[in-house]
Amino acid sequence: DFMHALEHDIKPAFGNSKEEFEKYVSNGIIKWGMPVNRVLEDGDLLIAQARSSDRTPLVTFLLEGSAGSGKTALAAQIAKNADFPFVKICSPENMIGFHEAAKCQSIKKIFDDAYKSPLSCIILDDIERLLDFVAIGPRFSNLVLQALLVLMKISPPRGHKLFIIGTTSRKDVLQEMEILNVFHTLVHVFSITSSEHLINVVENIDAFTSNEVEQLKKKTNGKSLCIGIKKLLKQIEMVRQMEENQRIVKFLCLLEEEGALEP
Amino acid sequence: DFMHALEHDIKPAFGNSKEEFEKYVSNGIIKWGMPVNRVLEDGDLLIAQARSSDRTPLVTFLLEGSAGSGKTALAAQIAKNADFPFVKICSPENMIGFHEAAKCQSIKKIFDDAYKSPLSCIILDDIERLLDFVAIGPRFSNLVLQALLVLMKISPPRGHKLFIIGTTSRKDVLQEMEILNVFHTLVHVFSITSSEHLINVVENIDAFTSNEVEQLKKKTNGKSLCIGIKKLLKQIEMVRQMEENQRIVKFLCLLEEEGALEP
Amino acid sequence: DFMHALEHDIKPAFGNSKEEFEKYVSNGIIKWGMPVNRVLEDGDLLIAQARSSDRTPLVTFLLEGSAGSGKTALAAQIAKNADFPFVKICSPENMIGFHEAAKCQSIKKIFDDAYKSPLSCIILDDIERLLDFVAIGPRFSNLVLQALLVLMKISPPRGHKLFIIGTTSRKDVLQEMEILNVFHTLVHVFSITSSEHLINVVENIDAFTSNEVEQLKKKTNGKSLCIGIKKLLKQIEMVRQMEENQRIVKFLCLLEEEGALEP
Amino acid sequence: DFMHALEHDIKPAFGNSKEEFEKYVSNGIIKWGMPVNRVLEDGDLLIAQARSSDRTPLVTFLLEGSAGSGKTALAAQIAKNADFPFVKICSPENMIGFHEAAKCQSIKKIFDDAYKSPLSCIILDDIERLLDFVAIGPRFSNLVLQALLVLMKISPPRGHKLFIIGTTSRKDVLQEMEILNVFHTLVHVFSITSSEHLINVVENIDAFTSNEVEQLKKKTNGKSLCIGIKKLLKQIEMVRQMEENQRIVKFLCLLEEEGALEP
Amino acid sequence: DFMHALEHDIKPAFGNSKEEFEKYVSNGIIKWGMPVNRVLEDGDLLIAQARSSDRTPLVTFLLEGSAGSGKTALAAQIAKNADFPFVKICSPENMIGFHEAAKCQSIKKIFDDAYKSPLSCIILDDIERLLDFVAIGPRFSNLVLQALLVLMKISPPRGHKLFIIGTTSRKDVLQEMEILNVFHTLVHVFSITSSEHLINVVENIDAFTSNEVEQLKKKTNGKSLCIGIKKLLKQIEMVRQMEENQRIVKFLCLLEEEGALEP
Amino acid sequence: DFMHALEHDIKPAFGNSKEEFEKYVSNGIIKWGMPVNRVLEDGDLLIAQARSSDRTPLVTFLLEGSAGSGKTALAAQIAKNADFPFVKICSPENMIGFHEAAKCQSIKKIFDDAYKSPLSCIILDDIERLLDFVAIGPRFSNLVLQALLVLMKISPPRGHKLFIIGTTSRKDVLQEMEILNVFHTLVHVFSITSSEHLINVVENIDAFTSNEVEQLKKKTNGKSLCIGIKKLLKQIEMVRQMEENQRIVKFLCLLEEEGALEP
Ligand SMILES: Nc1ncnc2c1ncn2[C@@H]1O[C@H](COP(=O)(O)OP(=O)(O)OP(=O)(O)O)[C@@H](O)[C@H]1O
Ligand SMILES: Nc1ncnc2c1ncn2[C@@H]1O[C@H](COP(=O)(O)OP(=O)(O)OP(=O)(O)O)[C@@H](O)[C@H]1O
Ligand SMILES: Nc1ncnc2c1ncn2[C@@H]1O[C@H](COP(=O)(O)OP(=O)(O)OP(=O)(O)O)[C@@H](O)[C@H]1O
Ligand SMILES: Nc1ncnc2c1ncn2[C@@H]1O[C@H](COP(=O)(O)OP(=O)(O)OP(=O)(O)O)[C@@H](O)[C@H]1O
Ligand SMILES: Nc1ncnc2c1ncn2[C@@H]1O[C@H](COP(=O)(O)OP(=O)(O)OP(=O)(O)O)[C@@H](O)[C@H]1O
Ligand SMILES: Nc1ncnc2c1ncn2[C@@H]1O[C@H](COP(=O)(O)OP(=O)(O)OP(=O)(O)O)[C@@H](O)[C@H]1O
Ligand SMILES: [Mg+2]
Ligand SMILES: [Mg+2]
Ligand SMILES: [Mg+2]
Ligand SMILES: [Mg+2]
Ligand SMILES: [Mg+2]
Ligand SMILES: [Mg+2]
Repeated sequence: DFMHALEHDIKPAFGNSKEEFEKYVSNGIIKWGMPVNRVLEDGDLLIAQARSSDRTPLVTFLLEGSAGSGKTALAAQIAKNADFPFVKICSPENMIGFHEAAKCQSIKKIFDDAYKSPLSCIILDDIERLLDFVAIGPRFSNLVLQALLVLMKISPPRGHKLFIIGTTSRKDVLQEMEILNVFHTLVHVFSITSSEHLINVVENIDAFTSNEVEQLKKKTNGKSLCIGIKKLLKQIEMVRQMEENQRIVKFLCLLEEEGALEP
Repeated sequence: DFMHALEHDIKPAFGNSKEEFEKYVSNGIIKWGMPVNRVLEDGDLLIAQARSSDRTPLVTFLLEGSAGSGKTALAAQIAKNADFPFVKICSPENMIGFHEAAKCQSIKKIFDDAYKSPLSCIILDDIERLLDFVAIGPRFSNLVLQALLVLMKISPPRGHKLFIIGTTSRKDVLQEMEILNVFHTLVHVFSITSSEHLINVVENIDAFTSNEVEQLKKKTNGKSLCIGIKKLLKQIEMVRQMEENQRIVKFLCLLEEEGALEP
Repeated sequence: DFMHALEHDIKPAFGNSKEEFEKYVSNGIIKWGMPVNRVLEDGDLLIAQARSSDRTPLVTFLLEGSAGSGKTALAAQIAKNADFPFVKICSPENMIGFHEAAKCQSIKKIFDDAYKSPLSCIILDDIERLLDFVAIGPRFSNLVLQALLVLMKISPPRGHKLFIIGTTSRKDVLQEMEILNVFHTLVHVFSITSSEHLINVVENIDAFTSNEVEQLKKKTNGKSLCIGIKKLLKQIEMVRQMEENQRIVKFLCLLEEEGALEP
Repeated sequence: DFMHALEHDIKPAFGNSKEEFEKYVSNGIIKWGMPVNRVLEDGDLLIAQARSSDRTPLVTFLLEGSAGSGKTALAAQIAKNADFPFVKICSPENMIGFHEAAKCQSIKKIFDDAYKSPLSCIILDDIERLLDFVAIGPRFSNLVLQALLVLMKISPPRGHKLFIIGTTSRKDVLQEMEILNVFHTLVHVFSITSSEHLINVVENIDAFTSNEVEQLKKKTNGKSLCIGIKKLLKQIEMVRQMEENQRIVKFLCLLEEEGALEP
Repeated sequence: DFMHALEHDIKPAFGNSKEEFEKYVSNGIIKWGMPVNRVLEDGDLLIAQARSSDRTPLVTFLLEGSAGSGKTALAAQIAKNADFPFVKICSPENMIGFHEAAKCQSIKKIFDDAYKSPLSCIILDDIERLLDFVAIGPRFSNLVLQALLVLMKISPPRGHKLFIIGTTSRKDVLQEMEILNVFHTLVHVFSITSSEHLINVVENIDAFTSNEVEQLKKKTNGKSLCIGIKKLLKQIEMVRQMEENQRIVKFLCLLEEEGALEP
Repeated sequence: DFMHALEHDIKPAFGNSKEEFEKYVSNGIIKWGMPVNRVLEDGDLLIAQARSSDRTPLVTFLLEGSAGSGKTALAAQIAKNADFPFVKICSPENMIGFHEAAKCQSIKKIFDDAYKSPLSCIILDDIERLLDFVAIGPRFSNLVLQALLVLMKISPPRGHKLFIIGTTSRKDVLQEMEILNVFHTLVHVFSITSSEHLINVVENIDAFTSNEVEQLKKKTNGKSLCIGIKKLLKQIEMVRQMEENQRIVKFLCLLEEEGALEP
């Protein structure tokens, strides 16, 4: 009856949101090191669980890491891998300027739709943004928070399965809000912190000549480094607009200005 | 006139909510030790009282314990045991995104319905959630709080009886709100804190081979342990998806990562 | 013109609220000691005053004491004794879920009705609840507070008399709100604090055999004790459901668990 | 054109509010000592000024003193003495349960009416109550406060005169709100603080026999005393309901319980 | 096209508000000393600038000084001197009881009207009152504040000129709100602080006989003095109602009571 | 299809807003020193990037500096240089008195319009004002903040490019709000801090005679100086209204009074 439900109860949600998902992994997933593999493997394991276990019809997973570390892209990739009949991203992008009641309604709607599918996956992207969180005050929407706290604990209807992936860069805030411990599994998304990983990224996207790569290796080797994949790609791209002889110097300069590379 | 009231004044409320109650005890009640028995016995004693005493037409009972300790399942089980003509769970699940006025109305409606039955039982599940409580601020709905403070003190109409079961994991907050001392009886729901109790759960659900159980006994014996039944069942299930030779190792590893088992 | 007003201007308010008043003294007033007598006598004295003095057409009286000490029952009894043509209880029970404007309206309506009767008595029950007070914040309805502050100072129309009885368990809060000093007279409602008074209650309601009473005397004599009449009656009733040989032991045990009896 | 305006532009406002004013001086003004005379004389002086000076068409006067010291009665008496064609009391009694916008409107209406009369007098009674002030927070209506701050500075139309009398028992609060220094003149209303003044009151209203008065003199002479006229009259009246031989004893006892008389 | 705009685009705004302006200088501008001259000269200089410079089509001027120092009267006088086709006072008097949105609208309307005239002058009187400011909290209308912050920076349409005069007695508050530094020029309005200036005022309005003036000189000479012109005129007027022989004594007494004159 | 989109999807937005942009650079951009050149060059570089790179379809740029340092004029100049088919300034001037929902809608509308053009540029001017920020509290519109936080991270539709320029004088506040780190590039707009730069401005606009310039050089040489270009131009203009012999003295005096020039 899985196929039946799929055909009759729900619209092929993934169909038209497949492109949407592409958008969130606009520059692909570069496998620059073990931390990337680990997140993807954990994701696959939990997908398998959600799919097969009857005792745990609800599986929840939180990706947390600093701004620009690649959380949203990884969540989207895992959801794509799941290949469930219902996959939906619950993103602040679709709720700009919404008052909290409207926001609540939108979120609830996504869950209600998910309950109708035998196998569903929901991404709660940028949870602090869904909550309209700001550190001054602090302020946030308690209506949305309470809705999430409850929705995260509701099992889907008998026989159905629900897999929820959250992303956040404010683990501390989610802890205080007691929303962290309604997630069953938690994984940290790492920034790039070694010259080796940096070189992997650069080589993967063919950004520089082998000469330049050599130069880069020498200059970064053994130095303390910390930069998210998102900003790293922005800076590489910026530098690529320049003449070849200036690129590596400018690139290292940008990294240092950002405080990403020990001078 | 009991039967008369039952037939004429109220709809057989339990009829359709019986399945609802099943939902809250989805994995049954595993009698893993004395603490479980005590909660159920206290519950039965209070049911008897509510049923027979004329001087105390209103009996109230609070189950408090840490997150995932099994409070909701135990409350649902006690309510099922009562077998009163009117049994209703007042749960935040049914009030997602409600503004406080709507929430108040829903709660009041449940009490008004209960007053019509000669013998009624209401579960106030996750009271901090009914109150939209969050520690940052702190914030909560004072409208709902005041309604509960008053409703918890109103006797049902002459000749009628009302039994109220509450659940909470924030005993401290309820104390500050002066809602704790409107409950006549209070019971603590314990987490699993001994190897023996852990083994009881594992054996009860036939999770592992006798070999594995032996191994588990050895590794956990004498170690400090603390985990709620809800999370424990989630982790067992997770491990069961793996190959037999890896299961106990992974299980112990998960318990330790959670901070549930002394390494 | 007293009788005329009674017949023409107002409906016999006491007629249908007589049963309502019974409800608030559901277990009668047990004269367990001098403190009970004093409250009732003070009440009678003030009723007399309200009835006869022309210079003080407005008389106000506050009963304050800890939760469950019997404030509401005593206020209802005094109001019954007054036997005024208009007697009304202004109770939070009738305003559940009301927003502050509606609450204000309800309260004002009661006073407006009272002004129409030559002799009126209003009970403001659980004033902290009428104000939606909660210690966290603290929060309360300033609209209701301001209404009460003003209403408590308005004399009834020329020739008419108004007697107001308030009850509260938060004397400290009312002080801070400057509502305490608009009450002309204040009386403290005592809890039961001696073995002798406890035995008086037990004997009055024929709760135990004379054997049991003897036992109780021995076990409580000289011990520090403090329990409100309301909770005491609840516990006696609870114990009465058991076999005779267990009752006194269980009763003492309950008192100790409550922190009401020195172990 | 004074008479013309009086006849054509405004209704004889004082006509029907004369009885209203009686209400506020229900027990007359007892001239128990110099402080009473001073307030009345200051009032008369300012009335004269408002009436005759062209340079100060707006005259404002604040009576401040502790609760029950007789502020409202004195303000009403001064306004009666003025005998202006327009006299109006702006009292919280007429705005119970009003939201701040409605309160503002009511107050503004009174001023607008006053501007139409060549000679007007407005009493702003219990200013902290008009402002819905409560010390917890503190909270108050800023809308009403701002309206008063502005209204207190507006001169009436050319040729017209306006005399404003305010009363308050929270001089400190009005200071903080910067409303104190928009009043041109300020006078303190004293409580009764000497045996001699107390005896003056008692003799003035013929409360006791000369024997009793003698007794009272002896017992209070030289003792520290402090009580407002309002509460004093309440207590005398209370005592008058008793048998003659008990009255003075009870009276002294009441004064001591209140903390009004040094024991 | 100046005249054209004047004739066609805007109503002769000054026409009917000329009397309004008189109202704000009800007792004229007494030239009691250099500080008065300086304010008026600065005003005239800035008017000239607004009129002739093309690079600074927007000129802004703030008069700040303690309560009653004469700010409003001086601003009105400067605006009268300007004799621009559009002159408007934006005063809290015209916005009593307005909610912030209405207040905003009114203020914006005044600016929109001003933009239509080639030469406009707006007085923002009592800015802290326009903002509904109160120190308790503090509270104020952020909607109005933000509107002013933006309006104060908008240049009038090409070819048009706008001159804005503000008044305030809370320079400190305006500083904190960052509204102080959107004013291009700032001038302090002084209170009267010398015997000589006091005598100038008294002589200017012919308040006392030359005998009295002599007396006043002697008594105030060399003493520390500080009083705003507004209150000073009120007190002189008050004293003028008395018999000649009492006037100077009473006047000095009033000044001392006010804390305006060193005793 | 670039041209096609330009012709069919969007109105020539720049056409009518070209004059609007002139308004923001009312006094041109005076190249008084290197800091000015650097801001313009950085701007041009980022425009080039936005235009040509496919990997970074979204480029963001923040100009921060103290009040009056020329941020808005520089942002407008850069946008003009870009010469994109869609250029729009999102300014608080167009949202005076708007409630936050309306403000949000206006801002979102600008972005939605921008997405339709293949090459768009948006100026977010005075971000703290868009947010209704005030330091007292602090208060600000969280609805607008959250909208900006999300909008700043949304890539334009596939193939389209978006260049966002922000301006602010409250870098500290934007940091706390976590809006600073959604900007990819940040540049500081400098005030004028050397005699040489001051002279460059003065000579550029032919403000004084060569004699006067000589005098100015001597008096400011080696002195500590700090003034924004906006206020500097205002003061020069002010002084130009005077007689030649007074101008430099007055100018230096004004600079000193402002605290802009070491005395
Ligand atoms: N290994 C990788 N992991 C994650 N993203 C990657 C990886 N390799 C390349 N990317 C690219 O890096 C970008 C990551 O951006 P993404 O928006 O996912 O970061 P984020 O952590 O969600 O940022 P933010 O904190 O702003 O929400 C994407 O464009 C993605 O295609
Ligand atoms: N002895 C037991 N007591 C309680 N629950 C049990 C027991 N044995 C098995 N269970 C199962 O454990 C789960 C307990 O989850 P439940 O939701 O009741 O926990 P909870 O304390 O209410 O959690 P939360 O704090 O999240 O509300 C249920 O699925 C229940 O069937
Ligand atoms: N002497 C007594 N004084 C008061 N109540 C008595 C007395 N004897 C018996 N009772 C019974 O005790 C109960 C007192 O409960 P009541 O609701 O009046 O207490 P309360 O102080 O108002 O409680 P709460 O603080 O919860 O409002 C009533 O049922 C009343 O009939
Ligand atoms: N000398 C007096 N001064 C004032 N009131 C007097 C005097 N003599 C008698 N009275 C009576 O005393 C009462 C004073 O009460 P009033 O309401 O004026 O006091 P109040 O200070 O306004 O009280 P509150 O602080 O509650 O507003 C009135 O009934 C008045 O008739
Ligand atoms: N030299 C003077 N400067 C200002 N006002 C003067 C002067 N001479 C006489 N006056 C008169 O003094 C009064 C000043 O009052 P005004 O309302 O202007 O003071 P203000 O400082 O605005 O007071 P507030 O702080 O209450 O707003 C006016 O009536 C004005 O006619
Ligand atoms: N080099 C320059 N840089 C910037 N502005 C200049 C320059 N030269 C001249 N100007 C002129 O100086 C003025 C700068 O004002 P602008 O409003 O841009 O300052 P701002 O920093 O945005 O001020 P605010 O902090 O008040 O928003 C404009 O009139 C502009 O034409
Ligand atoms: Mg993300
Ligand atoms: Mg639960
Ligand atoms: Mg009670
Ligand atoms: Mg009063
Ligand atoms: Mg003024
Ligand atoms: Mg700017």
